[in-house]
Formats: sequence, structure tokens, C-alpha cells
Amino acid sequence: MAFIPQNPDFRQRCDKTFELQNAMSSLGITLAEFGAGHVNLEMPFNRKFAQHHGFMHAGILTTAMDSACGFAAFTLMAAKAEVLTIEFKANFLSPAKGERFIFRAEVLKPGRTISVAEAKTYAISDGQEKLVAAMTATLMAVTLDV
Amino acid sequence: MAFIPQNPDFRQRCDKTFELQNAMSSLGITLAEFGAGHVNLEMPFNRKFAQHHGFMHAGILTTAMDSACGFAAFTLMAAKAEVLTIEFKANFLSPAKGERFIFRAEVLKPGRTISVAEAKTYAISDGQEKLVAAMTATLMAVTLDV
Amino acid sequence: MAFIPQNPDFRQRCDKTFELQNAMSSLGITLAEFGAGHVNLEMPFNRKFAQHHGFMHAGILTTAMDSACGFAAFTLMAAKAEVLTIEFKANFLSPAKGERFIFRAEVLKPGRTISVAEAKTYAISDGQEKLVAAMTATLMAVTLDV
Amino acid sequence: MAFIPQNPDFRQRCDKTFELQNAMSSLGITLAEFGAGHVNLEMPFNRKFAQHHGFMHAGILTTAMDSACGFAAFTLMAAKAEVLTIEFKANFLSPAKGERFIFRAEVLKPGRTISVAEAKTYAISDGQEKLVAAMTATLMAVTLDV
Repeated sequence: MAFIPQNPDFRQRCDKTFELQNAMSSLGITLAEFGAGHVNLEMPFNRKFAQHHGFMHAGILTTAMDSACGFAAFTLMAAKAEVLTIEFKANFLSPAKGERFIFRAEVLKPGRTISVAEAKTYAISDGQEKLVAAMTATLMAVTLDV
Repeated sequence: MAFIPQNPDFRQRCDKTFELQNAMSSLGITLAEFGAGHVNLEMPFNRKFAQHHGFMHAGILTTAMDSACGFAAFTLMAAKAEVLTIEFKANFLSPAKGERFIFRAEVLKPGRTISVAEAKTYAISDGQEKLVAAMTATLMAVTLDV
Repeated sequence: MAFIPQNPDFRQRCDKTFELQNAMSSLGITLAEFGAGHVNLEMPFNRKFAQHHGFMHAGILTTAMDSACGFAAFTLMAAKAEVLTIEFKANFLSPAKGERFIFRAEVLKPGRTISVAEAKTYAISDGQEKLVAAMTATLMAVTLDV
Repeated sequence: MAFIPQNPDFRQRCDKTFELQNAMSSLGITLAEFGAGHVNLEMPFNRKFAQHHGFMHAGILTTAMDSACGFAAFTLMAAKAEVLTIEFKANFLSPAKGERFIFRAEVLKPGRTISVAEAKTYAISDGQEKLVAAMTATLMAVTLDV
């Protein structure tokens, strides 16, 4: 879907906000590409964040998908809005093994207060993509008092 | 609820499996206490895993709640079963600020194949607990071929 | 948990609003009991709303749990607020067979805009209660313009 | 996605099973079209199943989306399998007003035991479609002993 951003400077604002998310740099998650209503994040496989079978922990994939959904919604919000995650739900479809992971999020329904976004996690091995997880997230736009 | 474990050695097995979860040690999440059908994990506040307002990232709380739910279900599984997360859903109720966090999970419904567990995240500040997040998770018992 | 209602006339308002929900009377769902932050609904078994094995359809249980969560949140809202369901998630734990069903909802976290409530469905057979389904719902308070 | 059904007689089996779902005929929900891995259901607006603002009740849309997801997964299951809903999560994006509703479900990931499907509800008014709700559902294939 094509969305029209309210904030003409949304790119700059997303870049700055992403840099403030310590969790992203600590986990090695990077902002690969984004536009109005969609965001792609990436992460290399990292055994430091694996579960007991050596696959990436479901919660780590979730951390990336949550940020991807949040930023996808954030691209469409007003210039002074902040984005909060109200809730999300994720299904884990295949073991999270691969050389690296791509997290693609899109806004399903933007809203003045409530937005809904969806994300998918793909594992990349030998140049092949495999769907490993899917999320639906509900985000809220709030104006924080300063 | 009181549950009767199938595997008399479930404590030893949970301890060993938890140690194999690199993600837990990398995030500083520890196994505080557990028994048949319930698990408590803990984590100190760590700004390395914060989002852009300086609160703990929702995905990091989720990683702990997912492990707590998974281990709670695992305590009731057969001796050779492995536990997989099929899906979970989490609501974020208050900003995740505090000195440390407690993650309490309980099995709602154990099953031969499918179990359902619930977890809550409490933030601790000045000795006061505050509910900050809640999860429902669906777990599956599988026997991995060796 | 004990909640203090904002609207002293919340009982009257809930009664009136419940009567306006045609879906409740068409499905035979009744308002059994409610107070500030909690609601119990009831429904007799009705084969007209069964799935193909003769159990109550998961969606029908969900309809009752959604209304129960919505009304539980509504009891705590301001006098002119309306309640909307943003989203819910339900797990089905046992076949929905029994003589009648009780749906118990409680607010987990009330909020000015966003509230979170939980509901459980119990099947009653020979005077015994059995847990058959569980829901978490996110509700929003809105003021509709007239 | 193109899926290959295991059961060559899946069409006949879905038709028969759908007819056994009393809830579908009582709510006026019909099987509009289906194939391997996808199902479309339809329902006219019916004020008997409305909530208090006169829109269709979220639980009624959910009943149709649950059946749509279940049948979509069922088309890909083995000849003797039965399908059970383990859980679902639904977001409500716009008021459910319109002349009729279309429920489109697709399998996201088929599996021997666990399948995941997604459904969307569209309201039709004056020939225009509007997205009003979205579901993700987890289904299980079981062989019932006779």
C-alpha cells in the first residue's frame, strides 16, 4: 500500500530515533532500508543470542520485529508523536537458523492514535530466504510532555 | 494450581537446558526459582538493552517471558521431550523502568503435545513491584531425533 | 484487584448498553453479575451455534469473552466514554462441551485511553467447572461525537 | 503461495464438514469459494448479530475468520485428519458496517501437526471493499479415534 507521511522529515527522525535504541546496536540489528509505512531491519546470526538448540532465540527475533513494526508505524506519525508498543503477537514457523536474518515490516492500518503493523522474519542461507516468524503489532502514537 | 511432573529429574534437566541458552547469559537473565509448572526469572536493568526512551526494550522483556513460559511448560514434559515455542502474545502495560525485573510464568494448561503458559513482568523500584507486561504462550513438546 | 469507578452510574450504563447488544440476546448470552472492573456472562449450550463435532464454536465463546472484557473495561471508564475492542487473542484449551458456559472477565490494567482485560470460559457439566478457553483483550475508550 | 493438497478429495470433505457447522448456517455465513490452502466465506449484514452501535459484533466476524482459517488449513491436511483451533488473535481496524462481509483466509505455513493461517475481513458497501479486521490463527491436525 502507498502511504503519505504527515511528517516530511520522517526519514531524519527515524534515523535519529533508531540510533537511540541501544538494544539494536547491542544485538547487532541494523536499519537496512525504510520508507513511508515500511521498514527492513537486518541481523547476522549470533550464537550469543541463541537458545539451547543453537537457533536464534524467539525473543531476539521478536525484538527486531517489534522495532521494525514500531518504526514502520512511526514513519507515518505526526512530527511530535512518539510511538509505543501496546501489544504484539508472533508465530514461529521454522527453526531460526541461517547466516543472517531480514525483518520486513509494513503498516496494515495507520491511525491518528492506534496503528497496526505486520512483520515477517526471513532467514538467509546460501542466498535463499526462508520465512521463520510472523508478527502483528498494535502501536500507539503519544505526545510526551517535556 | 498443583501439577505432578512426569519426569522425576525435571529440575536437573531444566538447570542444564537453561545453561545452554546463550541468550539468557548474554542478556543477564537468571533462573531465580522454579518448580513443577512454574518458573521465575530475573534480570537487572541494563541500558545496553534499552529502547530510545531509556526503558528496557519490549522485545527483551519478551525474551525473558518466552523463556519463562517455555521452562514452566518444560518442567511438566516427558523425560525425552524438547520444548518449542509455537506462538506468544504480549501486552505492555507500563514503561519498563526499574532497578530489576522479575518474570513469573505458570502453566495454565499442560498437554501431551500442546501446553499453554502465562507470564508476567514486574519492575522492582525501591522494593516496590509494578506489573509492566503480560504474556500468553503456546508451547509444543517434540521428540527430536538424534 | 479493587478498582474505583470514575462513573458512579456505571451499573445503569452497563445494563443499558448490554441490552443494546443484539448479538447477546440472539446468542442467548446473559449478564450474570458485574462490578467495578469485572463481569460474568453466561450462556446455555446451544447446538445452533456448534461446530462440526457438536461442540460450541470457538468464535461463539470468543463473542462472549469479547463482550465480557469490553464491559469489564467499560465499568471503569468515564461517564461519556464508549468502549471499542482494538484486538484480542484467545487460546482454546479443551473441547467446549457442557450444559452451560460461564465467561469471567477482569481488568488487568485500566487506563485513560487503553485498558487490558482478561477473560476465561468455563464449561459446566454436572455442577463441575472446567476451563475451556482464555482471552486477553485490548480495549480503547473513545468519545463519540454526536 | 501454491500448495499441493495431500487429500485428493479435499473439496468434497470440506463441503461436507462445512455443512455440519451449525454455527455457520445460524449466522448466515456461506462458503463462497475455496481451493488448496485458501478459503473465502461471506455473510450479509445482520442486525441480529450487531453490538450496541449497530455494527457487526467483533466476535461474529471472528467466528467467520476462525472457520475460514480452519478450513484453509483443513484443505491441506491428510485424509483422516480433523482440524482444531489452538488459538487465534484478531485486530479490529474499522467499524464493521456494510451490506455484506467477505472473509478471506490463506495458509501461511502448513505443517504435519501445526499450521498457521491468516484471514482478513472486508466490508462491502456500494461495491467498495474496506478492510475491517485481520486474524492470525494456529490450527492443529488431530486424528480422532473412532
